[in-house]
Amino acid sequence: MTTRELPMTVPSEGLPARVRIHEVGPRDGLQNEKGTVPTAVKAEFVRRLAAAGLTTIEATSFVHPEWVPQLADAEQLFPLVAGLPVALPVLVPNERGLDRALSLGASRIAVFASATESFAKANLNRTVDEALAMFEPVVARARAAGAHVRGYLSMCFGDPWEGPVPVPQVVRVCKALTDMGCDELSLGDTIGVATPGHVGALLTALAGAGVPAPVIGVHFHDTYGQALANTYAALQHGVTTVDASAGGLGGCPYARSATGNLATEDLVWMLRGLGIDSGVDLGRLTATSVWMAGQLGRPSPSRTVRALSQQQEQ
Amino acid sequence: MTTRELPMTVPSEGLPARVRIHEVGPRDGLQNEKGTVPTAVKAEFVRRLAAAGLTTIEATSFVHPEWVPQLADAEQLFPLVAGLPVALPVLVPNERGLDRALSLGASRIAVFASATESFAKANLNRTVDEALAMFEPVVARARAAGAHVRGYLSMCFGDPWEGPVPVPQVVRVCKALTDMGCDELSLGDTIGVATPGHVGALLTALAGAGVPAPVIGVHFHDTYGQALANTYAALQHGVTTVDASAGGLGGCPYARSATGNLATEDLVWMLRGLGIDSGVDLGRLTATSVWMAGQLGRPSPSRTVRALSQQQEQ
Repeated sequence: MTTRELPMTVPSEGLPARVRIHEVGPRDGLQNEKGTVPTAVKAEFVRRLAAAGLTTIEATSFVHPEWVPQLADAEQLFPLVAGLPVALPVLVPNERGLDRALSLGASRIAVFASATESFAKANLNRTVDEALAMFEPVVARARAAGAHVRGYLSMCFGDPWEGPVPVPQVVRVCKALTDMGCDELSLGDTIGVATPGHVGALLTALAGAGVPAPVIGVHFHDTYGQALANTYAALQHGVTTVDASAGGLGGCPYARSATGNLATEDLVWMLRGLGIDSGVDLGRLTATSVWMAGQLGRPSPSRTVRALSQQQEQ
Repeated sequence: MTTRELPMTVPSEGLPARVRIHEVGPRDGLQNEKGTVPTAVKAEFVRRLAAAGLTTIEATSFVHPEWVPQLADAEQLFPLVAGLPVALPVLVPNERGLDRALSLGASRIAVFASATESFAKANLNRTVDEALAMFEPVVARARAAGAHVRGYLSMCFGDPWEGPVPVPQVVRVCKALTDMGCDELSLGDTIGVATPGHVGALLTALAGAGVPAPVIGVHFHDTYGQALANTYAALQHGVTTVDASAGGLGGCPYARSATGNLATEDLVWMLRGLGIDSGVDLGRLTATSVWMAGQLGRPSPSRTVRALSQQQEQ
């Protein structure tokens, strides 16, 4: 079938040769699933993602089980996948979470801050600066233990309560996170409202403030269909780490449409077309998402998964 | 509600100040609908699109009624909307169709060619060059009658039988269409496989061949989720005419997912964020697509329509 040769590879000037996909499906993708996903299925999901060529797979979260019941099995899951030859970052909300992660041998941890006061209050019940103060010892102790630290920053482009988020406000929190020792940031467009010019403006401002593209990951949501256009703009600004969720898992699983995370497959399709190496086998990844959709009992919202799996059915 | 101020407007360098959206919902969006849409509903759809600020609305098609039964009411529909203060292009397949369109006072017509032999054979039962020869008198007569002529070109980036389509092959047919008198082209990614570098390469090659961006429209499909990223790349190459379908109507209406035309709302969201004037009122357009979805009995596949209409329900 000739469509197997598609997309045609046509590089675009000024883009990176290689992109690292930070796969968030097992953590961000599953965390809001209502029905409990068995630990063995989660482990198999991580294994299949690794077999598809993903090299960084956010495995789970060591938050309090009452906050995220779906990920309450972190202690059981992590040892099942820890032997895989991939990076397996885990989310920790505080020092207690860090202790749990480190005791299992986690070598990559992630903390999550907010660019807006409203979301800091809603998600962490703290001010932005109180949350940063809470993370400071977590980051310091993680680094002392030799772990790589990623700092997630939510609401970098818009906030459901505050509306537009000024670029300098986001830069200030990013700078605080790198100053306290985060090795990498993930700029979250939590409600999916960003557009490409806004992305470019934030990345330019961050570079000017001493937070250059190599330490930045972008985390776009497809709520308004903008995630891939925003990713393309980020690549044009030198970003080489892109967060995505296999099959587009996560986001708004209870809405009629699942318009959440950027689907890894849609990203890989674009990267393939651009001739940018991600190391991912699109066929194996799509098969993994089709399998996971079967486990969850509903189709993947990824357009690429739907298109490719329909071709296979024909 | 502060999210009404979103997206935040942050222009990006080198983009056009204004984009003309060529709205294809009433024609391309509806043509594959199985259940007959009443003529009065179609007319109301066009009226609401015009009221939402769209200035170019492809109204219908004067193909043989047996080919596209849904648009068999072209003679009845066109007079109902002809008085609107907007451009109302109509599709014509041959001289017979042109006669029907001109007799009703149509002042903008569109012909449709193929960049590949396989699709020319499948869609027109002719070779590429035979199809061009068939359109030559249509274009000449339309122009002699004072009509503006658009040339659609299908399969510009990939073909389901032939796979990747070489850029020079597309350039040759584009040049033939402008040489025969087409005022404007519409580059169709009929199966949705294009990526941004490919888009840029084709536009650069066309400019080099004497077919510059001002005479080019882009027509992307969202089959693999690439449509908006490709549109952004086209804007960066100077394109100022973008085809889109209100609510994302059209494409694959019988598939589980409707992954067809770029949704006009998703496009308008990006243009708003980029500070590019399209003249469209996003709220009125979204309301129109919600209304049309009600007429068709299924939700819009546009992510922006879903996000905005869910906010209104809350």
